[in-house]
Formats: sequence, structure tokens, C-alpha cells
Amino acid sequence: MNRKDYTATAGSRMADVSNKPVTRRTALAGGRIILGPEAFAQTVNRTLAKGDALAMAEIAAIQAAKLTPQLLPLCHPISLNRVAVRCHPAAEHDAIDVYCYAEIAERTGVEMEALTGLSVALLTIWDLTKPLNPALKISDTRLLFKSGGKNGDWQNPEGIPDVAASFLNEF
Amino acid sequence: MNRKDYTATAGSRMADVSNKPVTRRTALAGGRIILGPEAFAQTVNRTLAKGDALAMAEIAAIQAAKLTPQLLPLCHPISLNRVAVRCHPAAEHDAIDVYCYAEIAERTGVEMEALTGLSVALLTIWDLTKPLNPALKISDTRLLFKSGGKNGDWQNPEGIPDVAASFLNEF
Amino acid sequence: MNRKDYTATAGSRMADVSNKPVTRRTALAGGRIILGPEAFAQTVNRTLAKGDALAMAEIAAIQAAKLTPQLLPLCHPISLNRVAVRCHPAAEHDAIDVYCYAEIAERTGVEMEALTGLSVALLTIWDLTKPLNPALKISDTRLLFKSGGKNGDWQNPEGIPDVAASFLNEF
Amino acid sequence: MNRKDYTATAGSRMADVSNKPVTRRTALAGGRIILGPEAFAQTVNRTLAKGDALAMAEIAAIQAAKLTPQLLPLCHPISLNRVAVRCHPAAEHDAIDVYCYAEIAERTGVEMEALTGLSVALLTIWDLTKPLNPALKISDTRLLFKSGGKNGDWQNPEGIPDVAASFLNEF
Amino acid sequence: MNRKDYTATAGSRMADVSNKPVTRRTALAGGRIILGPEAFAQTVNRTLAKGDALAMAEIAAIQAAKLTPQLLPLCHPISLNRVAVRCHPAAEHDAIDVYCYAEIAERTGVEMEALTGLSVALLTIWDLTKPLNPALKISDTRLLFKSGGKNGDWQNPEGIPDVAASFLNEF
Amino acid sequence: MNRKDYTATAGSRMADVSNKPVTRRTALAGGRIILGPEAFAQTVNRTLAKGDALAMAEIAAIQAAKLTPQLLPLCHPISLNRVAVRCHPAAEHDAIDVYCYAEIAERTGVEMEALTGLSVALLTIWDLTKPLNPALKISDTRLLFKSGGKNGDWQNPEGIPDVAASFLNEF
Repeated sequence: MNRKDYTATAGSRMADVSNKPVTRRTALAGGRIILGPEAFAQTVNRTLAKGDALAMAEIAAIQAAKLTPQLLPLCHPISLNRVAVRCHPAAEHDAIDVYCYAEIAERTGVEMEALTGLSVALLTIWDLTKPLNPALKISDTRLLFKSGGKNGDWQNPEGIPDVAASFLNEF
Repeated sequence: MNRKDYTATAGSRMADVSNKPVTRRTALAGGRIILGPEAFAQTVNRTLAKGDALAMAEIAAIQAAKLTPQLLPLCHPISLNRVAVRCHPAAEHDAIDVYCYAEIAERTGVEMEALTGLSVALLTIWDLTKPLNPALKISDTRLLFKSGGKNGDWQNPEGIPDVAASFLNEF
Repeated sequence: MNRKDYTATAGSRMADVSNKPVTRRTALAGGRIILGPEAFAQTVNRTLAKGDALAMAEIAAIQAAKLTPQLLPLCHPISLNRVAVRCHPAAEHDAIDVYCYAEIAERTGVEMEALTGLSVALLTIWDLTKPLNPALKISDTRLLFKSGGKNGDWQNPEGIPDVAASFLNEF
Repeated sequence: MNRKDYTATAGSRMADVSNKPVTRRTALAGGRIILGPEAFAQTVNRTLAKGDALAMAEIAAIQAAKLTPQLLPLCHPISLNRVAVRCHPAAEHDAIDVYCYAEIAERTGVEMEALTGLSVALLTIWDLTKPLNPALKISDTRLLFKSGGKNGDWQNPEGIPDVAASFLNEF
Repeated sequence: MNRKDYTATAGSRMADVSNKPVTRRTALAGGRIILGPEAFAQTVNRTLAKGDALAMAEIAAIQAAKLTPQLLPLCHPISLNRVAVRCHPAAEHDAIDVYCYAEIAERTGVEMEALTGLSVALLTIWDLTKPLNPALKISDTRLLFKSGGKNGDWQNPEGIPDVAASFLNEF
Repeated sequence: MNRKDYTATAGSRMADVSNKPVTRRTALAGGRIILGPEAFAQTVNRTLAKGDALAMAEIAAIQAAKLTPQLLPLCHPISLNRVAVRCHPAAEHDAIDVYCYAEIAERTGVEMEALTGLSVALLTIWDLTKPLNPALKISDTRLLFKSGGKNGDWQNPEGIPDVAASFLNEF
């Protein structure tokens, strides 16, 4: 039995962030849930039987962003300064585009918080619309923008939708 | 489908606290649970069937104060420096007065942590005494005092009970 | 060192519920938060800076009811069938009355879940209105009604407000 | 101030499931994360700096499925019988396809648990590969299959990939 | 890239318990924390600066037993009927022996809940006594007894201490 | 009814850490689980029915370390910089030795986080091996090393195993 045995384990470790500077770091993530015509109409008209999916998605996303370190094994517990969510109907696709913004002043980035908030917002809309359409689909979950840290600003090479850019400008 | 559609959502957002100074901030919250004679006697005599309600209330309050950001959607995750609870029998009302003190060095206040700790302390006493009296009542949950931040000290205009003032002086 | 030593500990124990029947059990809890004129007006007009307090209170209450066993030491983990919240403006008091209903099919009652949901709904409204008035007050947290278990229906001897009775009739 | 005021709130409520039968209910969800060549190679070769993304994704997914009721406001707390995850490299797309299976014997379906587990598995892979490629993308999150409840079996009309069908046959 | 690739992952899966019978299942776990003379004396005399370690250990253990499925990846979420803790001073060893009992009516055993409650009770005592002695030690964490399920009663072949047997007889 | 009444409660309070310096603080904890020959062989050969116990233990430990303040009543919520786990087979004892390292830059030490991570790693291995041997045993849970704070470095007077010292040198 030698050392090689136990190094065969996952070798998981949280990154050491103690030498990174404390800076303002932001991230914006975006994704889409395709609902189909009936579920889309009831979502934007706020007539779903279980409540207002978009209001609920916003709150669930904020709560989930705070739970990120409990969900993702290697994420650090961090003190989020701000989380905000925007739901944008994309009527031509019977879809809702969701954007989640997160911001901290810490030693580590905030992408995973924005992505976790986004994912739970999309799942919340799913939960409230699934009685109308079991064949929902979530697509195009991406990081759109991040700032802070040693690498400075980064923008997704595929570009940022106008709605997302306008949302980002609010902060 | 225009922007107005999605701004009809709850518009929930955590306040941006990044420009607030990191200062020592404290808060003291108080409230009362009215037990009736039998439940009151067993509570202060520590003879309740399910255990010592006051000891348990203290610990539950400390744990709950730490869970505040999971409970209240727009509360920031913060690093509490200190939480303490005092249970004071108000024999003339067959009631227990509970005080919860919280303290941090952060960019945002600590009132909601003190109030959450307090509320869970009161509910813990409820849980242990309800077999004796289902008609319990919690009343007068208030913020009694807070300090720190740009507004400096604040005291509840209705005054602070002597017991609470004395408890506050311990910190 | 004898047995007496350690029986001096809290002696906390969860009640044994294994012999209780699995029945439908319901509970309705009610309480009030007194906001003052400005915070009341902004709450009901949905113009608070941090979002829609009443929509957020509903969702926070449902989430908190599910967390009851994590908050109250001796509460059993249970499978809630249903939680619902109603916020009722009491304009003559510049207050919001909140009612929280919980329902299960289990061996143990659901009062603490209804009361926990209620308390967190009230605290959520507090969190969003406190910038306008630090001297808020929560009063009259009571159990209004419960059903199920060996004791059958119970109604608070002080009576149930009409709004609460009407809410209860929806289930 | 009339009733109409407060019905303008989100009106969120958990569905009443008390009349639904307790049956075995299963769900299989699937989705893809597109990693790009470098991150893909390191993921399947288990050479990522932060550890084995696929092993970690499996475990994170199981944990997240259990947290579903804390993440999605209207999901019932349920007793999952089984959760399992499969990660399948799609080399021609430099992508990992992830499948998450969940199973219960309850009154309510298990789709959201499978989808939540899946989403957190995908985010875990994201977290470990993002140092190599910030332009990751999650696509095609779908429910592939569900069984149980009054509607019986349901299969996604777009079909089920062979790998997913084979995974489903293990249960 | 073939199937062999992904089967190299951890292959973690919760056991399928759907075919196991719902029976009353109990478990008793025991362990010891060796404190040294000073910390032992202050613990049993309840003079520790941070509070009553034994009362706190009891409550922390009950709370932790309920969190078992969040802590141990493959544990099922279950509805604990009862958790109870006993702390017994072993003066001759300057140690506290802790016993944790758990009971459910479910399809799966309750050993891990008893062991998790026990471990957190021991860690709580550690946390309160460590200012007096950093060289604490926890030893002999064992399952002492379990009942229920297809295998019937099981007793640890090393025997059960009298205190533990007497504690078990209370249930 | 005088003050003495309520001071009889547990008097629990989190230590005030606001005057302590923010320094890099580290802790290393170690412990052993004795598995017996069959469970030991299957653990190190990764053939356990429920998955790879050592990989899972690592991840569960990291997650648990982050949950420390929810588990231990008087632990402060802190921002862990790093958690890492090493599992080392001790073949001559049919045992696995587990080491958990934790590191922060805070006002309070990180021993309890290292010990909590360690305990949950050991319990995870227990959970996966118990079908093969119900008479498992965890022994010798100790703090091996800590650094930071006003007291500087501390090493367990019983010494540090070579494997642990080598693990510590990686940080």
C-alpha cells in the first residue's frame, strides 16, 4: 500500500485564493427557457395556476446564488454584495430569457454565483409551467460578462444581447 | 412584448452595499411570548416534558441568526461576530421577554439577524409549551437599539426596558 | 460523578410520534406588522425600493415553513403537502395582517410550520420597509385554527378574523 | 383598501397533493455542457487542476437533488428513494452529456429533482473547467422520461439518446 | 471515446430502498471525548466561558441528525421519529461519553443519523473546551445497537456499556 | 422572579472576535476509521457497491467544513480560503487514516472546520462500508497542527504522522 493508492482519489481541493487581491468583481450570466405558446402566454400574463413564475424566479435566483457554496463543492463561501435578476420575454420563440447579475468585493470571482442564480431561476419557471408542457427546454446558458481580478473585463465572444447590456448598465 | 412586461416582475434586488464603510454595527431586538400560568411555571421551573425551553431558545436563536440570509431573500450573507440571547421571565404577565443581540463588522446592518434570532427563540419556547396551552401569543417584537453605519446610534422611541439596557451593557 | 450530573443537561428530546395516526392535519397562524403611514403606503402601492414586499413575503414564508425542522430543535422533519400565505392590508392601522396556512398528512401537527412561515413573512416585510421606519412592530402572532390528530379541530378562543376565515375556506 | 389589493401579490402556493396516490415515480433529465477541446481533454483524462470534475459532478448532483425543495419555492419536501448520475463524453462536440435519474414513492413527481441534480452536475463541471475556457455553454436541458402518477409513462417527443436509454434500463 | 470512459467516474449511487419494508428502525451510537482534568471539571461544573457544553451538545446533535442527508452524500432524506442524546461523565478518564439514539419508521436504517448526531455532539463539546486544552481527543466512535429491517436486532460484539443500555431502555 | 432565574439558562454566546487580528490561520485534523479486512480491501480497490468511498469522503468533507457554523452552535460564519482532504490506507490496521486541512484569513481559528470536515469524511467512509461490517470504529480524532492568531504555531504533543506532515507541506 503506497502513496499512489490514495492519490487515486478525486484529489479535490478548493483553490487557494489567499494571495488574490480583494477587488470588486462582477458577473452576468444568461440563458433561455423555451416554453411553447400556451405556457409562454400564461407566464407573461401571470395566469399560471401556481403563481407568478417570473416574480418567483427572481427571488429563487437570489436565494440560490447565496447557496452556491453549498451546491458546488469547490466554491468558496463568499459575501455577495448584490444579486439581481431580469426576466425578458422572447415572444418570437415562446421563451423567457433570464439574466442574473452578481457582484462581490472578494478574492475570488462570482461567475458561479451568477450561473447558479440563473439556473435556479430557469428551473423555477420550469416548475410553474410544466403542467402545461412537459417538453420544456433550457438552452444557451452562458457567462456573458465578468469584471475584476487580475484578468480585468471579459465579454463573451458571441456578444451580449441588447437587453443584457442594458441590464448590466444599471449597476 | 416590451420592456414594461418584465419590469412588472417583483424587481427584487439586494441593496448595493459596496460603498458603505466597514464599521462595527450592533442591534438589539426584543419581544414577548405570553404563556399563561401553567406553561409559564413549567418553563421557568424547567419541568417541561420536552426539555429546557430557555436553554434551547438561546441556542436556536444563535443558529437562526446565522441562517438569516437563507430565510430573508434580500439579506446579505454576513460574518456575524457575536450573537447572544437573554430570556427574562415577566411573571406578572405569565410571559417570557426575549432579547437578542447581534454584532458585526461589515458594510450592512445587523437588525434582521437580531430579529430573526429573536423570532426563532420565541418560536422555540412556543414549540415546547404548546402542549400545555395552544392559545399562546407573541407580541411586541421590536428593534430596541442599533449602532454603526452612517446614521450612528438609534434607540426605539418607546424606550428600552431596564433588563434590555442592562443586557446591552454587557457588550 | 453520578448519573445526576448528566441529567442536569437540557434533557432535550423530540417527542416520539411513532404511535400517532397519520391523518390530514392543518394549521392557520396569523400576525400583524405595524408599518406607519409612509411604509404602509409604499408597501401596498408596491413602490418600495427593494421590491414588492408582499410577493416576496409569500415566497419567503413558503421556503421558511419547509426549513422549520432546521430552525426549531425539536421539530420533526415532515413532508408538507401545502403552504399558502395571504397578506391583508389593515389600512386603519397602517399595518399588514399576514396569515399562513400549512397542511400535512403525518403523525405530528403542523402548527410550528405555519408559525415559522408567518414569522418569516413578517420579517421579510420588515426587511423591505425598515429604511422608511426603524420603529416597526410585529404583534399578535397567534395560532388561529388547527385540525387533525386525536384532539380534532381547535379554534383560537379569541376568534378568527373574517379575512382569515375566508382564507381558510379556500382549502 | 379592498381584497383586490392583496390578491395582486404573487399568489404563490404549493399544489395540494394530498389526494394524489402514492406511487413509484421516476424521472430522467439530460443536458450538455460544451467545453472546447482543451477543457474536454483534461476533463476526460482527469487532469484538471481542481480535481476530477465528473466524479465531483455526480456527488454534487445527488446532494443538490436532495436540496430541491430549498431551491425551488413550490417544490414539496420529498423522500427521494434514489438518485443517480451518468456523465457521457460526446467527443465530437468536445462536450459532456449528463443524465440524472431520480425516483420516489410519493404523491408528487420527481422531475424537478432530476433537473436540479442535472443542473448542478453541469455547473460543477463548469466550475472545474472554467479556468481553461470562460466561454463554456450549457445547452439542451430537457426532461427525457418520466413515469408514475395518473398520466403514466411519458417520453420526450424528440426522443431519448441511446446512452440515456441504456442508463434508464439499469433501474 | 467509449462507455468505459465515464464508468471510470465515482459511480456513486444511493441504494434503492423502494422494496424494503417500512418498519420501526432504531440505532444507538456511542463515543468518547477525552478532555483532560481542567476542561473536564469545567464541563461537568458548567463553568465554561462559552456556556453549558453538555446542554448545547444535546441540541446540536439533534439538529445535526436531521441534517444527515445534507452531510453524507448517499444518505436518504428520512423522517426521523425521535433523536435523543445522553452525555455521561467518565471521571476516571477526564472524559465525556456521549450516546445518541435515533428512531424512524422507514425503509432504510438510521445508523448514520445516530452517528452524525453523536459526532456533532462530540465536536460541540470540543468547541467549548478547546480554549482550555487544544490536545483533545475523540475515540471509540461505534455503533452499539440497531434494530429493525430484515436483519433484526444487532448488538456490537464488544458489548454495550451499562449507561448506554440503560439509556436504550428508556425508549 | 429575579435575574438569577434566567441566568440559569445555558448562557451560550459566541465569542467576541472583533478585536482579534485578521491573519492567515490554518489547522490540520486527523483521525482513523478501522474497517476490517473485507471492507478495507474493497475501499482501497474501489469496488464498494455504493461507489468510491475515498473520492466521496473528500468531497463530503469539503462541503461539511463549509457547513460548520450551521452544525456547531457557537462557530462563527467564516470565509474558508481552502479545504483539502487526504485519505491514507493504513493496511496493517485495515484502516483508513484521514487528514483534513483548512485555511482562512479571519479573526478566528479554523480548528472546528478541519475537525468537522474530518468527521464527515470518516462518516462517509462508514456509510459506504457498513454493509460489509457493522462493527466499524472511528478512533483518534485529534487536532494535529494549527497556526495563526496570537498564539502562533501549535503542534500536537503526541506528534504528527509522516503522511500528515507531508500533506501539510503541500500548503
